[in-house]
Amino acid sequence: MQQLYLMCGETVRIMELLKQRIRQDGHVKPGNIIKVDSFLNHQMDIALLNEIGKEFARLFADRPVTKILTIEASGIGIAAIAAQHFGCVPVVFAKKTKSKNLDGELYVTQVESYTRGTVFDIQVSKKFITESDCVLILDDFLAKGKALLGLLDIVEQSGAALAGCGIVIEKGFQDGGDALRGKGVRLESLAIIDSADENGFVFRE
Amino acid sequence: MQQLYLMCGETVRIMELLKQRIRQDGHVKPGNIIKVDSFLNHQMDIALLNEIGKEFARLFADRPVTKILTIEASGIGIAAIAAQHFGCVPVVFAKKTKSKNLDGELYVTQVESYTRGTVFDIQVSKKFITESDCVLILDDFLAKGKALLGLLDIVEQSGAALAGCGIVIEKGFQDGGDALRGKGVRLESLAIIDSADENGFVFRE
Repeated sequence: MQQLYLMCGETVRIMELLKQRIRQDGHVKPGNIIKVDSFLNHQMDIALLNEIGKEFARLFADRPVTKILTIEASGIGIAAIAAQHFGCVPVVFAKKTKSKNLDGELYVTQVESYTRGTVFDIQVSKKFITESDCVLILDDFLAKGKALLGLLDIVEQSGAALAGCGIVIEKGFQDGGDALRGKGVRLESLAIIDSADENGFVFRE
Repeated sequence: MQQLYLMCGETVRIMELLKQRIRQDGHVKPGNIIKVDSFLNHQMDIALLNEIGKEFARLFADRPVTKILTIEASGIGIAAIAAQHFGCVPVVFAKKTKSKNLDGELYVTQVESYTRGTVFDIQVSKKFITESDCVLILDDFLAKGKALLGLLDIVEQSGAALAGCGIVIEKGFQDGGDALRGKGVRLESLAIIDSADENGFVFRE
């Protein structure tokens, strides 16, 4: 496992760096499971996350983002580091379980789990997203897009403006990304994988 | 809800800032539940997290930290931002559920849930913590210390050196912190709440 050590101020082609990292350290498991647990969603490469955050800030520089919304757990590190490149706007993460820490008025929406074949609720306290916000949604992966649809529904319930959605890795061979683009959502995926098998990864250009 | 806007390079007494923020935005709920969801574990104040990370780096400057270990979900943002102050060491977060993304050899340990009265497994891939590591454990809260004991057990299983444990808020009126200190664990809590009720918070000096 190699780390990406990036010099400050270096002009980084993050899309290329990310693809290179996926080719180097990513794995494909049966059932089209793409494993990037060595740098993105179990162990996190913080230098890489910093470049990813910088790139999201560049892509959404035209939007007056006031909040970043993500969902536990893997989105949190990405969103926290990205927020530093958006003037340290607050990050809100949707919760998958109702805990004692979550009370008061909530936005609740249902998310379908593709892998588990179940439906579960996600929730966000109404205090933290209001109609005066401009919300950027960030997450690590986009496949069927069910989690993202849930987050979009929460933004809609709140009356906030939507800056768009930023995704680190989109599985282009599943239909979530195209469905969202079809609905007019501004979706920026840093790497789109069009196919993945024992021969390697094919990225969308 | 106010944000802490901190100037770069300012000498910040983070302990005082944190206590002030807990007094201002924290709430006590029946059952000694301390709610700090407006800045720490549902909405995250990124500028504050940056100061917290800086302070952990100062407190553990004498240890050659190679990895930061935390547990999903609330620890992740804190650990990711703190890692930037430790030379961007990788962050590993223990998972509470066994997902398709988690395979291969795992460190597994049981954690008792005080609030739910259940026991659950947490797991970390063996690839990401090895005996050549020096691991700093970070988390948002310490109460009974059960999650921290689980993380300590994982570090012990791995054979890695332990740099210590950094906690943002310790509930000093529960016994987790004292038990861990009694075992000789180096534990640094940025704020220790000795009592919390309708009259407010009393912090340990």
